[in-house]
Parts: sequence; C-alpha cells; structure tokens
Amino acid sequence: MDFINTLGLAAGTLTTIAFLPQMFQTWKTKSAKDVSFVMLITFMTGLFLWLVYGMILGAVPIIMANGITLFLNLIILWLKIKYR
Amino acid sequence: MDFINTLGLAAGTLTTIAFLPQMFQTWKTKSAKDVSFVMLITFMTGLFLWLVYGMILGAVPIIMANGITLFLNLIILWLKIKYR
Repeated sequence: MDFINTLGLAAGTLTTIAFLPQMFQTWKTKSAKDVSFVMLITFMTGLFLWLVYGMILGAVPIIMANGITLFLNLIILWLKIKYR
Repeated sequence: MDFINTLGLAAGTLTTIAFLPQMFQTWKTKSAKDVSFVMLITFMTGLFLWLVYGMILGAVPIIMANGITLFLNLIILWLKIKYR
C-alpha cells in the first residue's frame, strides 16, 4: 500500500475511533448536556449521506468509516437522551 | 452537477457545519466538561491527516471540508480549556 492510501486510512481510522472516548465518557459520567443535540443530528444526517454516497460508488472505505462513526454517534445520542 | 456530486457536497457540508451549534452552545453555556478531551484530540489529529491527504491530492473539497471542521474543533477545544 502506498503512502497516500496509508495516510487516508490513518485519517479515516482516527476520525472514526475519536467517538469511542466520547461514548465511554458519556456512559461513565451519565451526562451529555454539554454535547450539542443539534450537532449530533446534523452530524449524523451528514454521515448518513456519506454512507449512501459510499454505497452508490461501492467505496468500501467510505461505507466502513461513515457507518461505524454513525453507529457510535447513534449510541452517544441515545445516552444523551437517556441521561438528560 | 450530477446527483452523486450533489450528494457528496451535501454530506460534506452537513458533517462540517455540524460543529457550529456545538461551538455556539459551548460559548453560550461556558461549559464543555461533557465533551471528551480525548475525542477532540483524536478527531483533530484525523482531520489534520485528511487535510494533508487532500493537499497531496490537490482535492479542494477534502481540503475545504476538513480545514473548516478542524478550525471549528480548534475553537471548541480552546473554549473547553478556557471554561474548564
């Protein structure tokens, strides 16, 4: 795998797994009032469109990265609603 | 512009502007303790790598989307540190 693909893969991995610590912190502290509800809804709508975009193009990295990020943010939204 | 490009543009716009309401909420409430510090650092590192990736490829949409998202998250991180 060449440099540019490794770079893209590292970038996609980081922007995806970044939401794991947010999920665990919200789960642990049982508080997400400082996490913007409008941010979550807007971000998740965008991620869903990226997912559709990846599916139409048949681009597995786009599907994987956005699918996992969407799933993690769905859990964060659920925790935010649960602990409000 | 065809459908697939419009879809990608809409997706990129949403995942970018999503951080505006987070920035305004943090600025207004002067609190971001529920926003994970590790999330911000990991996400911003990923966004920076996407920015370099876009620059190497000369891909303006990747540069624009990730540059603006990185800038907004930098402000959120600054507000989080300021109001801790």
